[in-house]
Amino acid sequence: MLTQVEVDAARRRAAGILEDAGIVLTPEERGEIEIADFGLSRLDDFGLEVVVYVNTDRYCAKELVLFPRQTCPEHRHPPFDGTPGKEETFRCRTGTVFLYVEGDATAVPSARLRENDQAAFTARHEIVLSPGDQHTIPPDTLHWFQAGDDGAIVSEFSSTSRDDLDLWTDTRIQRATVVRAGS
Amino acid sequence: MLTQVEVDAARRRAAGILEDAGIVLTPEERGEIEIADFGLSRLDDFGLEVVVYVNTDRYCAKELVLFPRQTCPEHRHPPFDGTPGKEETFRCRTGTVFLYVEGDATAVPSARLRENDQAAFTARHEIVLSPGDQHTIPPDTLHWFQAGDDGAIVSEFSSTSRDDLDLWTDTRIQRATVVRAGS
Repeated sequence: MLTQVEVDAARRRAAGILEDAGIVLTPEERGEIEIADFGLSRLDDFGLEVVVYVNTDRYCAKELVLFPRQTCPEHRHPPFDGTPGKEETFRCRTGTVFLYVEGDATAVPSARLRENDQAAFTARHEIVLSPGDQHTIPPDTLHWFQAGDDGAIVSEFSSTSRDDLDLWTDTRIQRATVVRAGS
Repeated sequence: MLTQVEVDAARRRAAGILEDAGIVLTPEERGEIEIADFGLSRLDDFGLEVVVYVNTDRYCAKELVLFPRQTCPEHRHPPFDGTPGKEETFRCRTGTVFLYVEGDATAVPSARLRENDQAAFTARHEIVLSPGDQHTIPPDTLHWFQAGDDGAIVSEFSSTSRDDLDLWTDTRIQRATVVRAGS
């Protein structure tokens, strides 16, 4: 749960990061940046700032902003409506992204997680994305990612996005952001 | 038909335009930028410089570079393999793009075409895209576009791309670039 003041501050911060990278948004887009705290109310640790450019019944494109060391928690995109589920390509634009997918565990991973948070992160194969690097994630496979110390911008190209269907390893997670009245 | 020298020069020019806009490519991507002259051998007039980020059997993402006043000729994306054909979203990143789609003809269009070239351009409904603007083109509908005086960068988000199936109003057009030996 976030307050409207927190949402507005995160929107301004994300819009500024995109502007600094030369990515132009319309005023409407700036005002509608999705601020996801995943219901965990720890936006600096677990969060994602999302601009959805387009999401048709065939394809989707988003810009993802991650604040420094911000983490998108582990999840997968399950099959729906006769499709295998969302397939997505992450392309790093600025900063560094530590992406974790299913596979052999990386011995010394670069992402940092508090001891108490470790259990909800099971995919441990690390892929480091620098600007210009990209990686495609098959449908219905576990993944999570964390920005490096300078944050990151990631372009996401994918099949149709149905965020409401995502399955999270941490069962406390609520994908839809709840905004609480007051400051 | 282009010479390898012309292809290499266009690649360097397109890579520089992308770099100036803060869009990072890998060295491999820079060396593989597609230079399309549509078989018309008039690259400054009719051409497109393309970086294909990803093209799976579900979605596709490209970066399109247009030199000043360069035109991508009129075409449509027909149905294939039981799909309705390619649906695509153009998002302008830098410069200005004059996009023409089916519909009421715009009385005073901004694109410039030589008198001899007019016949192969029938879609006359103009949409002006400035940075941050985007437009989605339904499958199997005619469209063409020209950059303004400063050129343009356009991000293309779409369903699967099958450039080899595109249907061009100018029947002389060959989509695959032919590179001639020598300079």
